[in-house]
Formats: sequence, structure tokens, C-alpha cells
Amino acid sequence: MLPFSRFVLGHRSIPSLRHRRRQRRLLSISSSPNVPLSHPTYMIWASNTSLGKTLVSTGLASSFLLSRSSYAEHRKLLYLKPVQTGFPADSDSHFVFSRLCSLASLRSSGGPSLSFSASNSVIKSSLPAAIALSGRNSLPGERIPAFCEESKFLRTAGTGSAELVCETLYAWKEAVSPHLAAERENCAVPDSLLVEMLEKHLTASLEGVFQKESKQDFCIVETAGGVASPGPSGTLQCDLYRPFRLPGVLVGDGRLGGISGTISAYESLKLRGYDIVAVVFEDHGLANEVPLLSYFRNRVPIFVLPSIPLDMSNDLVDWFNDSEVVFNSLREIMVSTFSERIQRLNDMPKKAGDILWWPFTQHKLVPEASITVIDSRCGENFAVYKDRKGGSITQQFDACASWWTQGPDAALQIELARELGYAAGRFGHVMFPENVYEPVLECAELLLEGVGKGWAARSYFSDNGSTAIEIALKMAFRKFCNENDVLPVRSNTGGRCFDLKVLALNGSYHGDTLGAMEAQAPSSYTAFIQQPWYSGRGFFLDPPTVSICNNMWIVSLPAGMHSGDLYNVVTTYSSRDEIFHKSRDKSDLAQAYLSYISEQLVSFSDKEPSVQIGALIVEPGNTRNLVVPTTSFGALLFVWFIVDNVIQGAGGMLLIDPLFQRVLVNECRGKKIPIIFDEVFTGFWRLGVETAAELLGCVPDIACFAKLMTGGVIPLAATLATEAVFDLFTGDSKLNALLHGHSYSAHAMGCTAATKAIKWFKDPKSNANILSEGGLLKELWDPELVARISSHHSVQRVVALGTVFVVELRAEGNNAGYASTYTRGLIMKLREDGVYMRPLGNVIYLMCTPLTLPSTCRGLLVKLLRRLQQFGEPSS
Amino acid sequence: MLPFSRFVLGHRSIPSLRHRRRQRRLLSISSSPNVPLSHPTYMIWASNTSLGKTLVSTGLASSFLLSRSSYAEHRKLLYLKPVQTGFPADSDSHFVFSRLCSLASLRSSGGPSLSFSASNSVIKSSLPAAIALSGRNSLPGERIPAFCEESKFLRTAGTGSAELVCETLYAWKEAVSPHLAAERENCAVPDSLLVEMLEKHLTASLEGVFQKESKQDFCIVETAGGVASPGPSGTLQCDLYRPFRLPGVLVGDGRLGGISGTISAYESLKLRGYDIVAVVFEDHGLANEVPLLSYFRNRVPIFVLPSIPLDMSNDLVDWFNDSEVVFNSLREIMVSTFSERIQRLNDMPKKAGDILWWPFTQHKLVPEASITVIDSRCGENFAVYKDRKGGSITQQFDACASWWTQGPDAALQIELARELGYAAGRFGHVMFPENVYEPVLECAELLLEGVGKGWAARSYFSDNGSTAIEIALKMAFRKFCNENDVLPVRSNTGGRCFDLKVLALNGSYHGDTLGAMEAQAPSSYTAFIQQPWYSGRGFFLDPPTVSICNNMWIVSLPAGMHSGDLYNVVTTYSSRDEIFHKSRDKSDLAQAYLSYISEQLVSFSDKEPSVQIGALIVEPGNTRNLVVPTTSFGALLFVWFIVDNVIQGAGGMLLIDPLFQRVLVNECRGKKIPIIFDEVFTGFWRLGVETAAELLGCVPDIACFAKLMTGGVIPLAATLATEAVFDLFTGDSKLNALLHGHSYSAHAMGCTAATKAIKWFKDPKSNANILSEGGLLKELWDPELVARISSHHSVQRVVALGTVFVVELRAEGNNAGYASTYTRGLIMKLREDGVYMRPLGNVIYLMCTPLTLPSTCRGLLVKLLRRLQQFGEPSS
Repeated sequence: MLPFSRFVLGHRSIPSLRHRRRQRRLLSISSSPNVPLSHPTYMIWASNTSLGKTLVSTGLASSFLLSRSSYAEHRKLLYLKPVQTGFPADSDSHFVFSRLCSLASLRSSGGPSLSFSASNSVIKSSLPAAIALSGRNSLPGERIPAFCEESKFLRTAGTGSAELVCETLYAWKEAVSPHLAAERENCAVPDSLLVEMLEKHLTASLEGVFQKESKQDFCIVETAGGVASPGPSGTLQCDLYRPFRLPGVLVGDGRLGGISGTISAYESLKLRGYDIVAVVFEDHGLANEVPLLSYFRNRVPIFVLPSIPLDMSNDLVDWFNDSEVVFNSLREIMVSTFSERIQRLNDMPKKAGDILWWPFTQHKLVPEASITVIDSRCGENFAVYKDRKGGSITQQFDACASWWTQGPDAALQIELARELGYAAGRFGHVMFPENVYEPVLECAELLLEGVGKGWAARSYFSDNGSTAIEIALKMAFRKFCNENDVLPVRSNTGGRCFDLKVLALNGSYHGDTLGAMEAQAPSSYTAFIQQPWYSGRGFFLDPPTVSICNNMWIVSLPAGMHSGDLYNVVTTYSSRDEIFHKSRDKSDLAQAYLSYISEQLVSFSDKEPSVQIGALIVEPGNTRNLVVPTTSFGALLFVWFIVDNVIQGAGGMLLIDPLFQRVLVNECRGKKIPIIFDEVFTGFWRLGVETAAELLGCVPDIACFAKLMTGGVIPLAATLATEAVFDLFTGDSKLNALLHGHSYSAHAMGCTAATKAIKWFKDPKSNANILSEGGLLKELWDPELVARISSHHSVQRVVALGTVFVVELRAEGNNAGYASTYTRGLIMKLREDGVYMRPLGNVIYLMCTPLTLPSTCRGLLVKLLRRLQQFGEPSS
Repeated sequence: MLPFSRFVLGHRSIPSLRHRRRQRRLLSISSSPNVPLSHPTYMIWASNTSLGKTLVSTGLASSFLLSRSSYAEHRKLLYLKPVQTGFPADSDSHFVFSRLCSLASLRSSGGPSLSFSASNSVIKSSLPAAIALSGRNSLPGERIPAFCEESKFLRTAGTGSAELVCETLYAWKEAVSPHLAAERENCAVPDSLLVEMLEKHLTASLEGVFQKESKQDFCIVETAGGVASPGPSGTLQCDLYRPFRLPGVLVGDGRLGGISGTISAYESLKLRGYDIVAVVFEDHGLANEVPLLSYFRNRVPIFVLPSIPLDMSNDLVDWFNDSEVVFNSLREIMVSTFSERIQRLNDMPKKAGDILWWPFTQHKLVPEASITVIDSRCGENFAVYKDRKGGSITQQFDACASWWTQGPDAALQIELARELGYAAGRFGHVMFPENVYEPVLECAELLLEGVGKGWAARSYFSDNGSTAIEIALKMAFRKFCNENDVLPVRSNTGGRCFDLKVLALNGSYHGDTLGAMEAQAPSSYTAFIQQPWYSGRGFFLDPPTVSICNNMWIVSLPAGMHSGDLYNVVTTYSSRDEIFHKSRDKSDLAQAYLSYISEQLVSFSDKEPSVQIGALIVEPGNTRNLVVPTTSFGALLFVWFIVDNVIQGAGGMLLIDPLFQRVLVNECRGKKIPIIFDEVFTGFWRLGVETAAELLGCVPDIACFAKLMTGGVIPLAATLATEAVFDLFTGDSKLNALLHGHSYSAHAMGCTAATKAIKWFKDPKSNANILSEGGLLKELWDPELVARISSHHSVQRVVALGTVFVVELRAEGNNAGYASTYTRGLIMKLREDGVYMRPLGNVIYLMCTPLTLPSTCRGLLVKLLRRLQQFGEPSS
């Protein structure tokens, strides 16, 4: 056995950082790295600086590469240090490299043969760091070459091969926090670039360089400083690396006070959704493992390393020998936990198909292979597990906003995690009636100052849109009976003096509990087979709709309105603003709407003279379209989806003419019919304003909110009402009160999330999309791209409003079925592009959060347009 | 001005710690300290040891007591150091005391007159610490006297007076973590004792010694080590002091790596529900405030202190002078934040009355003074704000389990906070259909292995009990139609071939959405005024009930059963076990039940021949009784509450005879009527077993769960079903699927809480109440006390089962109204005793969590019995 060494020097020319940053701005989708799962990959975190992260990395590398039990196997370890300061004096990758070389050399002498090779390189360094390393002067503005540091290569006569690849991605000279070093050395790295670089090196090394046949590969990513130490841009490292969500080992603190720091660091990682598989720390004779074991309750194994000798003259060889058994155990835990994770991820689709029962889903039509395994989400992106190519996590933009609920970007998600942890720690749940606690009071205040501004006086909390609607109906009926002097006989027998129905729009949808179902028109969803008790207690109007066709806004009138005197009415507009302009109130069309509504009301009354209209309910938010693509009917607020044919799945997702809604509301108010706005879908910026009532230009007596209210993380609903409505429930008798409630009414967790999200959404400091004046969202969908898509030959029409972008594909007559298949194919291709959409008949839509950057939305439209062009004509 | 000093030595004889510990065992209610809010009281936390907590305390004391602007005012500062190690060499209270004396002396020289007095005392110390302090030898076992250390007194000619009181509560000699010192010096302090001691000193000093008229009092409690450093018992300090939930100042770390430690420590405090009003740290030239400001986004002010000189020869006088402006600002923030908190707490009842709308509540009957302001909860206790005596937080045991939801003790609450934070950080919310993610899969697995064991194959998730029932009805009707060959014509018109009703028990309650309402008998809750659409689609049986009267279990038969052939039937039992014994299946009573049920079914069928019974729904969980005391009707699983008279509020909360339930289930199964168990209330140990089906000894086709499922922190419901039920929804058409869903179906937050809680409840390692074999809860209610209460002359009957203890007070005929008033008075008195109950007609109940210690339950019963005895006879 004759170890020898050589030096490898490489020079790769790279553009300067400044240049890269300029490029970066053009990339539209925010950091969404893919993570290979073909080999264990772990982050090494520490609860503070100088706790021996690099010693742990070295010990693991040694255990993995140099232990005698694995001499016969091919194996490779990739050690990545994304951020290094104090370079080149301090270089953790060099430390790992040089120690492993020493250890390999020692272990090879006198034992069985060991073949070992190692390299260490630094990919990018700041100018001062590069100069310090090369020992030469550099001209200002000169491009710094990438460089490799000295690299050693050891070879034995054996057949096995152990390879160590050490890489430092970015290095700065000053031995301070990376954000300071980057600033002082005028050499910043934006988060997205660092994430991209790390992804590239993880992927290249694991997929490219590593031997495909070998299962003995391993990767370690060592962080800098403590878990929440800033990275180069100032972003905390635990946030910076969150898109990868790699499992981690936490290097704790064995010193006095170290228990606290170790626990807190662990909790900061947990709050960001990280999995920590082990805690390891140096023994300082204080038995810190005892309270830590008690804290971790056996969920996380704890490893104690021997004390590090003050005399480090022999390169810690003795210490590494003494620690070998600890590192071997730690490595085994890391390998087995990784295998268990992969096993579980692979098993999940089958298990899901076996024991779960998805809503709105025909299980028989969902093959196992099409089940999406969601490993986590970071802001707007799902991290989806795919078992191809040895397994990987890929990122998909959640373009259906998880059933139209989603609000958080990555920053708000972490904020909400902390606030929800706080609410659970402070309140858990506390009962509501006759009590008050901060989150519910603040939430009610924010609702009344925000979405209820100018009309609402009371907030009634429940759990979801459906219950909020049931409550709204109870409120509205009380108001109707009272105002129309038709107080029923108080009776326990269920006998009634007259029947009450609601006035609603065809295609409306308000939820799946019976009361909410009764307020919608008969359909497949309300058929006997679904709920035998449904009878359909509403009168339903067909509304006029608007959409963009060939870059023009066009009003489509319902069949019932097509009479001779409408020929001169203007129904084409050049911009969305015209559609929403109040001046239309005086138009001929407004008069035509009024006549149409009056005629319809008379005809309802003629048909069922014993029935009274007890409430108007408008602007519904439909959630179920999303999962039953071939029975695509229902309605959103404004965005409305006409059923042409339930089975064929053709239809349109259209905007109801706001003028019509306003005329309808005013007409009902005149007739003392209480007005309910169902803002479950539209509330909280979904359509670009905090409340859709602002768009409509009129207010209700009662309104329902849910979905985005909590930022889209947990269920909570509110039914807001005027003081006049509330007053009808006060009196001397409890029987007069609203006798409706749910166990978790106004739960502290939901109210806390809501207070945070409501404030975050509307504050320009936290939401870059808020225009400083007027309380409007920026235009998120690039008008030029919208126009191009609306003019594409395969597109029937388009609606872009707020966070919603809807495309109706051409599907006429018998082509509808084709269109449906076509849509499904399109959506599957878009998933490959990293866009998670769900088919909805011949309609596809993109939905983002109120915080999503316009550049991200632009990226989505570009991908959509590209795929539309690829798919060609529907008739081909 | 002539400063002088004197020494005060005091000797208070105290019992040894060992003795105190023995006493402690007799106290039944766990730590629930009261906190005075008459003056600002703050905890000083640090992110690590040796960061200068005591310097901050000293600086604050100096700013508060010695600043010239307040010379004219009376003011007092109490400095408490609950836990001190390294004593007497290290004594933080002595440091504060001596530095303040020096500073006072210096400031008085040459300026306006300052009158200042100070004292420092150590209340309890370990034997070694006491010996070290007194410099004498001590005999083993000798009682250590409490002692006061040297105390200085400075006086000036001025009229103002500034007083400093420094107290160390417990001191140990070794300079190690308190849990180690306590162990090594054989001188432990249980958490409850430390909490009690701190409460006593906070209360005594603030309420007793402090001048009542002065608003210028201030209190500082300084912790030891880092936020999560162990206290003397090993409990982390952040957990140990949680019952007080005092607002805090965090002393951060200005060194390299200190940003991370500061943020993590802050997050650990937030996760436990603490409010941190400021972060302060020493400048080390690294500008750590920059990333911290960015992290805190102006929510928390940050203060940077000048670097501490290495030369401390002048007692840091210069440093304190340099820091004065920082400490003045910090103090102002602390004072103003405190005032704002008190202001808000005082305003809350009025604001709540103005803008909230409580469920089931007649607002007119809730005077502002009776609104409970809940500042937080810790495990089973509410922390309630009272504005009397200058304001205070008092603890009340949540004996109505917050509408029967509550599960966590203090430990599980923190565990859930961390897990919920993790779930929010990892998933936020992700949509469910066709997807799978770890929390939903694990939750479904736990449900099917637990409450659904032996029969359930699928889990359908929704948001609350009401929606779970609506789903169960849809499932059951599908099964009925299919099994009875009565498949209806598929129709969108709402037309039906026949009517379906449910078979249920009178007084049942399943929720407030229309479908759930339809399954319950007509009552005030279902009257036209509440929901005009209710028609009552059920046949309702009167069931036999059982309860304890004079320490005997007695079956009461419904009126319909009282025929001649029942005279010989046994209806009295000596124990609850006999009631639940399967051998009763062969009794005459079982035969009598069967006849009764058959007769009733025939009579229903005769009455409405066109109606079929599509489902049996039993064991309902009623939640609304809790808030509408004078309309007390409804039912729980087993525990059943009969309406005698809605207005008078008389009734009983009784156990339905399990034999009757079993006979009914078997009879319906024979008739191919699908069986639904409503376990919303009873599931997850509420009745002492994981599922009430175990008590009944039969299984359903469908069962509904909610409430305790998430441990009682957030809404989530599950409808479990057999594979046979699921199969009826599979097929080639989507129209065959169950077209029901909610936006947050199977939300990750709820599923995560559920997985944690379900496992925690049933694991003897985390739940001391679980009997190692048999999966039963320990008997929580002391049988002797139950017997005494059941025999009390004012008590009609009693039920004790699992976590529920119900007392029906005597209320016959016209006394019912009186009984209701009597109950309300009783409950108000019990609130003064620290037990939060809600009146329910003439019924009162105590409900604990599955984790509540039997000693705590015993304490509740003792308090109840004492108040019953005080209140005397109802007729008096």
C-alpha cells in the first residue's frame, strides 16, 4: 500500500455575481429546488457557533467511508459547505478533506487495504477571499475564476473504492456572519441564486457523478453558525434552506446553558417544518443529555461525543478513534431513517387508496400512479414526491390554491407557524359564549373595520363556508319574517304558516350541508342519490355574464332577456374598468336588467303563490368544481361557470355582470328581502380587493367569509351582520337568541391566524402587491399575455381578475368530450412544468395568493401559453 | 445629605423542604397561581447564560428608582430571583442590591436629594449554601433558618422615597444548572412548591407591602440561565413559569452566533404563549440588531447596550451611566405596554358585548360584569382577568371542558403547540382529494386502528360534528336504498319516490346545520323562529335511563314501557359494572326492551306508511345545553338529558341503559337499517374508554368523531365507515361518488394535532390515567365522594363515568325555576373557588380531560360538596 497525492487545479470561468443578479430578475418562479432522494442527504445544524459541526461532519464521513465493515463496497460521500466565511484561514470543507485524508492514511497502514480518493474545491469566492487564497493581486472588476483547492488522492490495492468530494459553494474572507462578510466584501448572493447553486450541486453530484448502481452514497450539507444565523443576504439560514426541507442532525451544546440553546434551536427548526433525526453534542461533564432526553421523550436520539482535547497536535486522530462508535451509531440512524422515509413515501399512494375517502372523488377513477404525494409545502409551492429516478422531491406551484384557500407565501407561512404555535401555547382552545379573549376580539375588530366596513356590526363565528351560510339563512329569515309582519306561530310541531324560499342565481353553490344545498338549484350534486332530503328551496335566475374574447370584454345576456328592445344596448367594452364603472347604472342595459328581474319575480310568484322569498343570496363561491371535472357546474362570485352538459363537461367560468348584481340587490332591498353576500370564495383579496362588495358597489345585510380568512391554513368562518339583524335576536327570552353553534366556535387558533393574515395581506410593508393607495392589489396577470391567450385559436374566452385567471377552451357541441380530454392532457404537461392544476371540464384556471409576485404569475402564463401552442388546435 | 447604612438580620423558622414536599401531596389542584396586575411585573429571560440578565435588572431598577425625573414620587421595585446557584459567591439579588446602593449613593452626591432604601434577603437555601453563607458548621438534618443578607438603607432629606426589595427565593451552592445543584445538594424543590412560593412573594410584596395609593411600583423576576434551562426539578424554566405567563424582556446575545440564539430563544418563549415586549443585548460591534430588526419587523423593540468594560473596578458605574438612556427607554416601553395591556383587559368586556355575537346566547341576559375575560389557558386551567383590587389574573379549572372539547394538560398543550407550529411550517394547508400527505395518512391509520377497530375501513374528514353527521346520513341513506332494493330514479328535479326518515332517540342532538337538525325531535331549537325549513324527519323513541340515587344504580323505564308484565323485571343494580355487563342480554328486561322497540316501530309504520326508516342514529353528543341553561334538553351518548319543561329548565342528565342501545342496534341491523353512532362527544376517552362502542358491546356501520379528536385544540371531524358502505360509492361514474366536501377537508393542522393527541391519550407513558391493561381510564371520581354527593338531600341523582360527573339537583314541580336560580348561585360560588362551570338548568356537571389527575378531580368534588352543604336545602 503506497499512498500518494497529487494536486488538481481547475479553472472554470463564471460570470460575476453582479451580472448573475441582473439575470436573476428575469426568472419568474421563486426558489423551488428539486431534491434527489436517491441517497441520504442531511443538513448539519448547530444551536450556536463553534460547537463542532465540522467535527461531526468529519466523523460521519469517516464512519461512512473508512469503517472496515464497508471496505469492500463502493461508496461516495459528498460534503457541501454552501457558505463559508473567514476563508481561506477557515475552510470547513478543507478540514473535512484533510482530516479524512489523514485518517484514511492511518487506517490503511497495518490493516486491510483501503482505496480512498478525495477532492476539495471552492466554487465561488469573494474578491478578497480569492486574493488571499491565490496570494496575488487582482484588478478591480476582474472576473474571479472558480478554483479548486489542493486535492489528494489515495489509492490502495483493494477492489473497493471510497470517495470523498468536498465543496465549498461560496466563500468570504472576513470571519464574521455571512451577511456582514457579503456586505463588507461587496459580494452579495441573493437567496434564489444560493438555492439554485445548492440544488445544482446536490443534483449533479448525486445524479451525475455518483455511481448509479451503488446504494452507498451519502451527502452532508453543513450550515454556518447557528440555525437562525443569517445567510449571505441576511435571510436566516433556517428560512433560506427551507425549500429543500432536508432532514437534519442538530449539533447541540454540552456546556453550561447549552440545554436551553439546544432545545430552542430544535424548536426553531421544528417551527419551519424540519425533521431532526438526531441531536449530538460534546460532553462537558454536565450530563446535559439527561434533561434533553427528558425533553425529547425518545422521539429524537441523543448522542454524546467525548470531550475534545485542548491539545489538537495529532489532528484529533485519537478523538476520532474514540468517537468512532458514536459516529457509527449516528450514521446508522441517519441511513435507516432515510430508508424508512423513502419506504413510507413509496407506500403512501397505495395506503391512501386503501383507507382514505376523498371528497368529491370517484376512487375508481384515480389510479394509484396518479395520486400526488405531498411531502410539504413552502409558500405557494408543493414539494411533491416522485418515485422515478430513485426518488426525488419536485416543486409544483399550487395553482388551484388548494381549493381556493391559499394565502401564504414562504414568509407568511413561517409567520403563521409561529403565531399558531403561540396561540396553541397561550390558549389552546377556550370556549366562546359569554367569554372574551384577545384573538376573537381582535379578529372581530379587523373584520368589522375591513370586509364589513360601513355596514356590519356583529361577527358570528363558525367553522366553514357551509355553516356560515346556514347561519346567514337563519338570520335572513328572521329579518324577513319580522320586517314583513309575518311572524309565524311559535310552535314545536314543525307546522308552518307559509313556505320560505331564497332567491339565487342558477349554478350557485353554497356548501354541502342540507341547508346550504337547499339554497342551490337542482343538479347532479343535489340528486336523490346524493341527499334524499334535498328539495330545492329557491327561485333561480339566469344572470348575464362577461368575459374577454379576442381582447374585448363582452356581455352575454341570458336566454330570457333576448327580446327585441335590446338591440341597441351596448354589450361590448374595451376594458374591465368600464365593466365595473358605476356610470353604467344609468345605461339602457341597467333598465333592461331591472325589467328582466321584475318579470322573473312575477313569474315565480305566479307559479308558487304560497311561497315568499325570504332572502336573496348572491356571489357564491363554489369549491367543488375543482374535484369533479366532468360535472363542472357551479358558480363563484362573479366568476361563474355555466353547465351546458353535466356529463360532457363543457361549460364556462365567467364573470357575472356586476351591474346586474347591483340592480338585483337594489331591487330586493326595495322589496324588503334581506341580502346575503356569500363571500366565502371572494373575501380577502381573491378578486384583487379585500371584499367583493367594493367591486359591486353595494352592501348586504349579512355576509359570509371563510377560506382565505385564516390565510388559508385552518378552517374558520364568519357570518357578519348589521346591528339591525342582531337586534332581532335580542330580547328577554333565550328562545329568541340564535340557537346555533359549534364546539370550536371562534377558536383561538383560527382567530389568531385570521388576525395575522388579514393584517399581513393589506399592509404594503408585508404585501408588495398592495398599491399604496386605494387598497387594491396590483395587476398580477400580465395584460399582454392575457390578451395573447384570449386571442389564441383554441381559447373561447378568458377572465383575469385579482388572483384568478380562467381560460375556457373551445368546446362546441360534440367536441366537448374531446376538450375535456385535451384539458386533462394539458394539465398533466403543466404539472411536469412545475404547475399543479386540476382539470375542470374544458376550463383551466390559475389561482395564486394575494402575495404572489407578478413575475411569478407571468411565469405561469408563459408556461401555459407555451403548452397551449404545443397542443395545437383542438380539432387536430 | 449623609448616607448611612445598617444591617438587618432576620430569622424565620421554616419547615424543611422534605416536610413541605410531604404536605404538598395533599394539595389536589395542580399549580394554578394567581397573579396581581396592580403593577408592572416582568420576567427577565435570556437566550443563554452570562449575557447580563442581572445587569439589565440592575439597570432597570436604577432607571425606575433613581432617575431624577421621578425623585418626587414614591416608588418601589421588587426584584425576585426564584432560583440561584453558585450561592453565596454568586448572588444576583445581592448584585442588584449592592449596585443600586452604590448608584444611589453616587447620584445623591451633588444633586437633588434622593431618599432610597434597600434590602436583600434569601428565603431558602440548601444546607451547603447556608453553611457557606453563615460560615459555620451544621449538624445533618438540622433545619436551616431563612436568613436575610446584609441590607442597606440610604436616606436623604427629600420628601420622595425610593425602595428596593431584593429577594432570592431558593439558593444552592454549586455553580451548575439548578437541577444538578438540587440533586447534588440533596435539596430538591418540586415545581408546585416553587410556583406557590413565587406566587406568595409576588402577591405579598405587591399587595401587602407596596403602597396602595402609589402607581409607581414595579416588579422584576429574573430567571436563571437560558429560557429553556432546567429549573430545580428538571422542568424547563419556560414551562415551569408558564402558569404565571408574565410578560417578559429577552436578554439577547450580541456575540458572533448570537442572532441565532436570540431568535431561537424568542421562538421557544412564543411557543409557550409568552409575550415578549423587548429584546436587549450588549453590543459586541457586530451590529446584530440589523438582522434582528428585520426578523422582528418592528413588532418587538430592540435595545442595544454599550459594551461592558473588561475593567469592572468602578462597579460599572460609568457603564450604568452610559446605559441610562437605554434603560430609561426600556423601562418606558415596559410601563406603557403594561398599561396598554390593563387598558385592553378592562375594555374587553364592553367591546365583546358590542361587536361579538355568541352562539346560543341571549345577549340581553349577559350583563357586562358577567363576561369572563380569558387571558390564557394552561392545561386544564383558564387564566381569568378580574378588574377588582387593581386587577389580577386568577386561575379557574375549566370544568365544562370548553364545550366538552378539552384534552390537554399543561404538558400536552406545549407538545401540541410545537406540533402545530411544525405542521404549519411544513404543510400549512394542502388540498386533499387525490393527494396524500403524512398527517392525514397517519391520522386515518390511528382512527382505524383505534376508535374504528374491528369494523371501520375508511375515514372521511370534515370540519365539525354537524358536518360529520350530514356525511354519515348521506352514507347511510345510500346503503339503505341499495340494500333494500329501493334505488330511486336518478333525477335532477328533486322529485322522490318515497320519504326517508331516521330512527333516533327523543332528546337527541346532532348539530345545527339543517340535515343534522332534521334528525332530531322537534323542540325550541328546531322551531320555525330558529329555522323555518326544519320539518323533523325522524321517528323518536323514549329510552330507559340509569343513574345513581342514594348510592344505587337504578333503571328508569320510559312511560311507553310501563305495562303489567314488567313488574318482575330487575331494575336496580349495586354497581356500574353490572349495568354494562353483557350477561344482561339474556335478562327479562332485554326481552321487554325488544318488545317495546318492535311495538314502537310498528306504530311508526302504521302512522306513516309511505315512509321508510333509512338509518338508526344513536348516542348523540349534545353541545348546546351548555349555553342555554333554561332550555336544557338534548342528549349525550349515554348521558341523556330529559326535557321536562323547556322554560322552567328542569331536567336530568342521565345515562341511557346500554342494554337498550344494544337491543336497538341489533334489531335495526336485522331489519337492514344502517347504524350510525354519533361519537362526537363520547369518542376519545370522554367516557373512560377510547370509543363508547366498547361500552355498548356492538359496532356501527358508520360513526362520527370530533371534539376531543384533535386533543381539543382545533376543529376536525371524521366520519368512519365500513368498506361495504364505501363500496356503494365506487363505480365508473363520478355521479356515484360522495359529492360532499369542505375546503379544509383533512387539513394538515387538524390531522397533526389528532395524531399527537390520539397517541398521547392512550399511551401510559404520557397519560398516567391509562391502566396498563385493558385500555381503560382509571376511575377519576372518588367513589366515596360520589356516594356522599349522590346521597345529599339536595341531590336527585348522579352519574359518574369517565371524565364526566353529573349532578341533578332536586327540582320538582314548581320548584324547578327555583332550582335553576339555586344552581346559578352555586356555580358562581364555585367560580370563586377556582372552578369554571356553567349552569344547565338544575343540572351541574364537572368535566375533566383524559389526563386530569384523580387528585385534581377529588379536589373538585370536595369543593362541590362543600358548596352543596353551604347552600343547604333547595326549599329553604
